[in-house]
Amino acid sequence: MARRYVILASGAFAGRSAKTAHGVIAYATDRTVAVIDPTFAGKRVRDVLPYLDSDAPIVASVGAALALAPTSLLVGVAPPGGALPAAWRRSIVDALDAGLEVVNGLHDVLAGDPSFSAAAARTGARIWDVRVPPAVPLFSGSAYGVAARVVLTVGSDCAVGKMTAALELTRAANERGTRARFVATGQTGIMIAGSGIAVDRVIADFAPGAAEQLVLQNAPHADVLFVEGQGSINHPAYAPVTLSLLFGAAPDALVLVHVAGRRTIEDFETPLLSYRALVRTYEGLCAAVKPARVVGIALNTMGLDDASAHAAIADAREQTGLPAADLVRFGALAFYDEIAPGLAGKTAPLRRGDDAA
Amino acid sequence: MARRYVILASGAFAGRSAKTAHGVIAYATDRTVAVIDPTFAGKRVRDVLPYLDSDAPIVASVGAALALAPTSLLVGVAPPGGALPAAWRRSIVDALDAGLEVVNGLHDVLAGDPSFSAAAARTGARIWDVRVPPAVPLFSGSAYGVAARVVLTVGSDCAVGKMTAALELTRAANERGTRARFVATGQTGIMIAGSGIAVDRVIADFAPGAAEQLVLQNAPHADVLFVEGQGSINHPAYAPVTLSLLFGAAPDALVLVHVAGRRTIEDFETPLLSYRALVRTYEGLCAAVKPARVVGIALNTMGLDDASAHAAIADAREQTGLPAADLVRFGALAFYDEIAPGLAGKTAPLRRGDDAA
Repeated sequence: MARRYVILASGAFAGRSAKTAHGVIAYATDRTVAVIDPTFAGKRVRDVLPYLDSDAPIVASVGAALALAPTSLLVGVAPPGGALPAAWRRSIVDALDAGLEVVNGLHDVLAGDPSFSAAAARTGARIWDVRVPPAVPLFSGSAYGVAARVVLTVGSDCAVGKMTAALELTRAANERGTRARFVATGQTGIMIAGSGIAVDRVIADFAPGAAEQLVLQNAPHADVLFVEGQGSINHPAYAPVTLSLLFGAAPDALVLVHVAGRRTIEDFETPLLSYRALVRTYEGLCAAVKPARVVGIALNTMGLDDASAHAAIADAREQTGLPAADLVRFGALAFYDEIAPGLAGKTAPLRRGDDAA
Repeated sequence: MARRYVILASGAFAGRSAKTAHGVIAYATDRTVAVIDPTFAGKRVRDVLPYLDSDAPIVASVGAALALAPTSLLVGVAPPGGALPAAWRRSIVDALDAGLEVVNGLHDVLAGDPSFSAAAARTGARIWDVRVPPAVPLFSGSAYGVAARVVLTVGSDCAVGKMTAALELTRAANERGTRARFVATGQTGIMIAGSGIAVDRVIADFAPGAAEQLVLQNAPHADVLFVEGQGSINHPAYAPVTLSLLFGAAPDALVLVHVAGRRTIEDFETPLLSYRALVRTYEGLCAAVKPARVVGIALNTMGLDDASAHAAIADAREQTGLPAADLVRFGALAFYDEIAPGLAGKTAPLRRGDDAA
């Protein structure tokens, strides 16, 4: 089903807490037909955030958006203050009463709230709490058999741009005529893709199985899957989720993502690994199960001037001998063309008798 | 609290499905005062399973065990057929009615069963479903600060003897006068230790935090912690749990565990890594966060004749230059003495400015 989103962002659309909403407007294949924020009612998205390049109207209420035939109310903005304010509750009930699906990216599980579940029951509307993972089987190795090539973005840390790199590469591949799909593994990605599993919320034993299910579900519809990576292999807290994707998605190739200039893991003092150590570590782990090579480096140069950005990119190329680029700043097509030969083949998992060492 | 266990094993005590019960009798610091299995009523544990070397009586019912002043009924045996038979249900209710704690290692959550929870409410007895993990915080790095040395057993695969190696080393260390504690991370280990967390059942994001909490809880009571490892670093399904312990328990040293002769990961065709590749991979990952060296190899030679067992041990020593032994077959003391110098110091986590590559 193609969704038509109304984004609930009352009093918050212009702020940082709305970055999921901004991501959905920028990248989702499903269209945002309106934004609810009384502060900016009467304007269009482009008037408030020019870089989003969307002429969706901003309205004051769910009622005012219904004429645009939305299918879903998207709650992708953390409400100012954290707890759901009364006005937001009203909007959610209004949407359910109008039969709209509610897609919720907040930690709060809306389906567990009696007034929301009652409203949903009245009209048969669905509440989708995207952070709540479905039940999945254990990893079985079925992902080894898909025909689509699987590319996983891996990082030097959290919050470096792994989702964005996967989205940009999906767009570039499709532009070049390759059927590509973005596979979402985190909450913002799920809201952009309209499907996915928050792998970090799955019970540890089943996290690789969740990644495998995502590959199995998406593979029939594409020639290449770009799977959103999570964390980093030397992140003291999140590396196990990283490894769940590295083994569970069974990638054929990896794209390494890094923010130029970052030196330590967020919230820890752990130094980031060098490019060469990252390539060695990720490729080494894959080599013990199903080989995959790093085919390029997506560098996030936000905050650097152009000369420094180019220097950082040149440095990444020089240290690794791999293609490197800032896909957002300088475009993803040239980088995609450069790595495309490395995305052309499937790799086979190791089998009894192979040498894993 | 020191527990006094009655083990519920009706119709199953002599079989393989009772291996958790056998482990508790063999290794638990808490004493087993009776076993319930009408098949063998009147005999002692030693009469049925000589290697367990226990003279605990086998009785026909909970009532018959009460004279031995038990504190807890332990359900550590999978009932024949899988589902709880009526006689077992009766025993559990009898135990709760008598005010005994029920310690349950089955998948079924007994606290969620209305007749059991009602019985527990009547007497104030506790039902402890050991597979259900408690809520834990995210990994914070607090484990880096404990004074106790932390030793983690890591494996070439699942079910190679990581729990047993940790238990044998704990016993050997205590025998040598070092205050040592076994830290349980899986269901059987938890029933043996009387505490612990089934780390594979924790939500992926929180699994390293669970390992950290176990270290923080146990460290004040010991000079050395032997933490039960899980899985293997190239296990396609369970490696993320392995890594959760490797980073979350923040070990100072590792003991590598392997079954002589095994060539592929259980249930997969993935070849096991060589000793050298295992050492390199585990040490390499630790080196990127908090250094830890493999100090020795605990080899499980079950099924080999003595000459082949000695040859397998010699091969492990030769390939790695490390101490190697079968701790169960030939005793753990000599091996412990050999690795003890490697367990004497703490390692520091990497800090800003250190070179992680």
